[in-house]
Amino acid sequence: MQIRVGIVGGTGYTGVELLRLLARHPGARVTAITSRAEAGMRVDALFPNLRGHCELSFSEPDPAALAATCDVVFFATPHGVAMDLAPQLLAAGVKVIDLGADFRLRDPATFARWYGMEHRALDWLEKAVYGLPETRRAAIREAQLIANPGCYPTATQLGFLPLLEAGLLDPHSLIADTKSGASGAGRAAKLPNLLCEAGDSFSAYAVSGHRHQPEIEQELSCWAGGEVRVTFVPHLTPMIRGIHATLYGRLTRDIDAADLQVLYEARYREEPFVDVLPPGSHPATRSVRGANVCRIAVHQPRPGQVVVLSVIDNLVKGASGQAVQNMNLLFGLPEAMGLEDVALMP
Amino acid sequence: MQIRVGIVGGTGYTGVELLRLLARHPGARVTAITSRAEAGMRVDALFPNLRGHCELSFSEPDPAALAATCDVVFFATPHGVAMDLAPQLLAAGVKVIDLGADFRLRDPATFARWYGMEHRALDWLEKAVYGLPETRRAAIREAQLIANPGCYPTATQLGFLPLLEAGLLDPHSLIADTKSGASGAGRAAKLPNLLCEAGDSFSAYAVSGHRHQPEIEQELSCWAGGEVRVTFVPHLTPMIRGIHATLYGRLTRDIDAADLQVLYEARYREEPFVDVLPPGSHPATRSVRGANVCRIAVHQPRPGQVVVLSVIDNLVKGASGQAVQNMNLLFGLPEAMGLEDVALMP
Amino acid sequence: MQIRVGIVGGTGYTGVELLRLLARHPGARVTAITSRAEAGMRVDALFPNLRGHCELSFSEPDPAALAATCDVVFFATPHGVAMDLAPQLLAAGVKVIDLGADFRLRDPATFARWYGMEHRALDWLEKAVYGLPETRRAAIREAQLIANPGCYPTATQLGFLPLLEAGLLDPHSLIADTKSGASGAGRAAKLPNLLCEAGDSFSAYAVSGHRHQPEIEQELSCWAGGEVRVTFVPHLTPMIRGIHATLYGRLTRDIDAADLQVLYEARYREEPFVDVLPPGSHPATRSVRGANVCRIAVHQPRPGQVVVLSVIDNLVKGASGQAVQNMNLLFGLPEAMGLEDVALMP
Amino acid sequence: MQIRVGIVGGTGYTGVELLRLLARHPGARVTAITSRAEAGMRVDALFPNLRGHCELSFSEPDPAALAATCDVVFFATPHGVAMDLAPQLLAAGVKVIDLGADFRLRDPATFARWYGMEHRALDWLEKAVYGLPETRRAAIREAQLIANPGCYPTATQLGFLPLLEAGLLDPHSLIADTKSGASGAGRAAKLPNLLCEAGDSFSAYAVSGHRHQPEIEQELSCWAGGEVRVTFVPHLTPMIRGIHATLYGRLTRDIDAADLQVLYEARYREEPFVDVLPPGSHPATRSVRGANVCRIAVHQPRPGQVVVLSVIDNLVKGASGQAVQNMNLLFGLPEAMGLEDVALMP
Repeated sequence: MQIRVGIVGGTGYTGVELLRLLARHPGARVTAITSRAEAGMRVDALFPNLRGHCELSFSEPDPAALAATCDVVFFATPHGVAMDLAPQLLAAGVKVIDLGADFRLRDPATFARWYGMEHRALDWLEKAVYGLPETRRAAIREAQLIANPGCYPTATQLGFLPLLEAGLLDPHSLIADTKSGASGAGRAAKLPNLLCEAGDSFSAYAVSGHRHQPEIEQELSCWAGGEVRVTFVPHLTPMIRGIHATLYGRLTRDIDAADLQVLYEARYREEPFVDVLPPGSHPATRSVRGANVCRIAVHQPRPGQVVVLSVIDNLVKGASGQAVQNMNLLFGLPEAMGLEDVALMP
Repeated sequence: MQIRVGIVGGTGYTGVELLRLLARHPGARVTAITSRAEAGMRVDALFPNLRGHCELSFSEPDPAALAATCDVVFFATPHGVAMDLAPQLLAAGVKVIDLGADFRLRDPATFARWYGMEHRALDWLEKAVYGLPETRRAAIREAQLIANPGCYPTATQLGFLPLLEAGLLDPHSLIADTKSGASGAGRAAKLPNLLCEAGDSFSAYAVSGHRHQPEIEQELSCWAGGEVRVTFVPHLTPMIRGIHATLYGRLTRDIDAADLQVLYEARYREEPFVDVLPPGSHPATRSVRGANVCRIAVHQPRPGQVVVLSVIDNLVKGASGQAVQNMNLLFGLPEAMGLEDVALMP
Repeated sequence: MQIRVGIVGGTGYTGVELLRLLARHPGARVTAITSRAEAGMRVDALFPNLRGHCELSFSEPDPAALAATCDVVFFATPHGVAMDLAPQLLAAGVKVIDLGADFRLRDPATFARWYGMEHRALDWLEKAVYGLPETRRAAIREAQLIANPGCYPTATQLGFLPLLEAGLLDPHSLIADTKSGASGAGRAAKLPNLLCEAGDSFSAYAVSGHRHQPEIEQELSCWAGGEVRVTFVPHLTPMIRGIHATLYGRLTRDIDAADLQVLYEARYREEPFVDVLPPGSHPATRSVRGANVCRIAVHQPRPGQVVVLSVIDNLVKGASGQAVQNMNLLFGLPEAMGLEDVALMP
Repeated sequence: MQIRVGIVGGTGYTGVELLRLLARHPGARVTAITSRAEAGMRVDALFPNLRGHCELSFSEPDPAALAATCDVVFFATPHGVAMDLAPQLLAAGVKVIDLGADFRLRDPATFARWYGMEHRALDWLEKAVYGLPETRRAAIREAQLIANPGCYPTATQLGFLPLLEAGLLDPHSLIADTKSGASGAGRAAKLPNLLCEAGDSFSAYAVSGHRHQPEIEQELSCWAGGEVRVTFVPHLTPMIRGIHATLYGRLTRDIDAADLQVLYEARYREEPFVDVLPPGSHPATRSVRGANVCRIAVHQPRPGQVVVLSVIDNLVKGASGQAVQNMNLLFGLPEAMGLEDVALMP
């Protein structure tokens, strides 16, 4: 029997990516996909890549109908939507995976400060599990509500984790210089995302503060055994998919490059979706395009200073692929089911 | 039991694409991949997207060893290689699929004129079957040697076929204005293919004559019931994958747009990998990125004039995907096995 | 004394391109630039490339103020704006160059059919001169109101003109397969123009009919001595600037390639902004990026069939550069003044 | 009278960019351009953007001929060429501007370590002046031999300088996370620079050490009043032109964001080619495309931590434009002559 999947907010890039991944998932089938704006339209009319793979049409978001026909519902919506609609589904026993930001920050005040609205589902916020399998696999298996991590936070956490868990990093020295393809900005008709504006150009944005910073600090602080501070600078890169995090930190004690390599390989040996590259490597985002994997290389360019390179596809391991990974965990399926695509290169 | 696959010339883009597709093909496994230049190197060191999916290393091309360990061998090589190495494999009973051009042109003189060398395997040239399943499926099933079609010829033939088969086109009026991504030029360190040369620019090339023109004319003439002439102008587009063929022809008799649509839909109704779009559509190459499908739209902008738009991924339906499709036919497997990926969009 | 220039609608790509070109024009200075949406904002806050080159702020469009402070006003506006605002300026003796479409089509009925509105300035429509200097230089010098040609029409006309003027083309055989960079769609926040939608992809659009087709047919018919019909298919290319027109036609009599070359070179020998390339050339759009030039190559791939390749920068020779060229003619300045930039390559 | 200019090694991107800039420079004209590989070929046959702007052909590099016909010679060559050819020119009284690396590093041992060859012109190395006008304008005016700075070093130095000169940065805390377009790798037919390899992807390179690091450290140490150490990580960005340096440092004492802004504005107030953006800005590389300018924004995302964003066009302010600026200084011309192009945007 297959898991019945609902998707709320299916017209964005994480929505169509969920459909792409689930179209071939042997243990799940999408039974409903909602969109207020496109209700009634066939999904493959909007996304022709799905022709032959999806017979659905967009429907109005109706929690009662979703609860009746879905075992799990993915929210691929802007923040503020899931916290209003998910509780009714959760109360009906449906599992929920929120690809948005509503349940990522544990502290409602922090949420309010960064997202400009009060949290409206505090009880569920408490019960939500942050869905990074590499740190919270056991809790995810038992959860009903998953806060799927942000794209930058996924690449950044996986890059810093081994060092922080080992107590090797000065927790106030962290710098995350991150670069994202334009799909990270979503499928919204905004001027800065035009080919003529974002193409053939490179720039930083939100240097004064970005919503993913408190998320990164919250999670890393859990594993570092103390408060971690990150200087986080995101950049827009003229490509479609991919995040490259270049991570800097000061080591708290002497450790040579070979031992760093051993540390990373040991930490991720059993992880199906984290790939530690050989010493001296420089992972390219295209090596993960379309694949649910984070590739990492660790460097020590001078004593005391570590540089970690971490790449993901923001729409896969940074969003929809990780959401499917969480679904597999929630339902006791093999964790890699439906996630074995090879990255598209070139 | 799985088909044992060998790949000769595995360091180009069609080679790595074969590996990507075959990595998840349930009925086949790659047992050997050769490269003179990279012999001894692990494949996933050259193509990190394959890390976790391929344990092979490149080996020297050795026909005897290939014959002993392979049921089928793909040649992903420049022209001139397969006609020297394939005969020994064929004599040993191995099936061969040549992604290069050695066995596409029936007439050795035409081959010599366009490729600048005499043909050196005339007996096998006679026996080779041109591997476009949409026109020669039955013959492919019985063949031992497949000449896998060129990328432009695939998009162009599939676009013109219904009209020519129906006798609706003036056979001397055909124009194929075709556009290819840079991967069509292969993984060769040549100046015109640099990002700085090919990027953010557009140009035609080979207007005076391109090797795919005689291939297109040969094949279309088979189905048109008479000699077909094509004005063929290829262009280089600043993208990685994808071919867009804009095809023009003069109709020999009145037929309205609705009947044209019916003609195309009827011709391809049973074809698993040709998708006729609704009237008024404009297929984008990204709708087929990574997928083994040709999407087609037919337009009639003014009476007597037809315009057909045909898109493929040059590395999939235009090369490696079609080669796997041919392999499936050769071995009696379901034709779509291993070829059900959804196109990557965005 | 410098010409005082006003620009109405300065927030689009043709507006900023006018500012770039005029910033260094020795015979003109911009005295006013209007934008309803951005009135009060400094121009260089919106367009940082102009920092240090432009001290102006956007103002509300006010015809009386413009008439008082400008010798010439450029309209860089969508269709429908110039025909309402320009008459007041023209009545005050100001010269007007409309980069939009309001005054390009001679026949008001044709205008109404293609642009979906009645023409509201019929008297000025009659007096307007179509501003392609290569065909109407003398009339432009005497005009008060210039209809600056569209981008596709510029590339297409310059490519076909020598053949049509010489009576060498079957006037019903013309095909213009044209490709444009994304800036041709303007600086508007529309979904299809996003980097994630238009990037790394290629598609046709408006195959059933595009507004530039009647413009091309109107003008070419003037010089062909009879009605010309063009099958016109535009495409969107994943680049920022540039148009590549691939033009096809059937020759009405035998003429060899060398004579075609002579014909083109002779036609454009005195033209400062049309460059006929040597035989066998394939102009790339990047060879004209940022420059006010059209580069053309003429080919004869088979007897009776001609293929012309014509490239321009859609924002320069296809819009703002040509507008400045027209301004120079209107005011008796050297035609090339301010237009001598070398194309940016790579 | 115009300065007579020679260019050695004119077939690379810095060579063609010199030609583009000098084509319109009122005080200079190119009299010779050399290339061993292309000797005899017209320059505009290789670089069609120069058609109509350059009548020269490439010649064999001949120091005697250059000395006879040139007042200044630019070397746009790989390292190792200028130190062999320049001395003969210098001895003849010709001025030399080396766009390569031969004369940038003061210490011959450092040069040998990073460039893998002994320095062969030690006397001239001593006399060479590092050509960053913003730090050494007076010395440049008096020099005969200019070591034109590297692209990354230009963006990085201009970004860090005000803070280091003011003693505000911990000299061991500097991190330069830099991103370059593909033209930084030069016009060489190398696999990693193909559109299919570098396009739509992002990666770091040379994390273990890059030749620009000692150059940056040497120069910054001059102005910091002590040894400066930089962690330098370059990245390849899928665009053609542009460098974006994201610079991190720890402040040695409290200073608020407003004072930082004042510091930067004061430092560069008189500089014609350094533009300090308003507080909160994020410069994009496209805002400097084709222009000889460095745009800088300074941020303080948390107390004690400064982030500087610095962008240049690597071929202009990062190479050929800066070389022309140095030429202007060497000959007493207005420093901005021929360098007033507005950046091409979009």
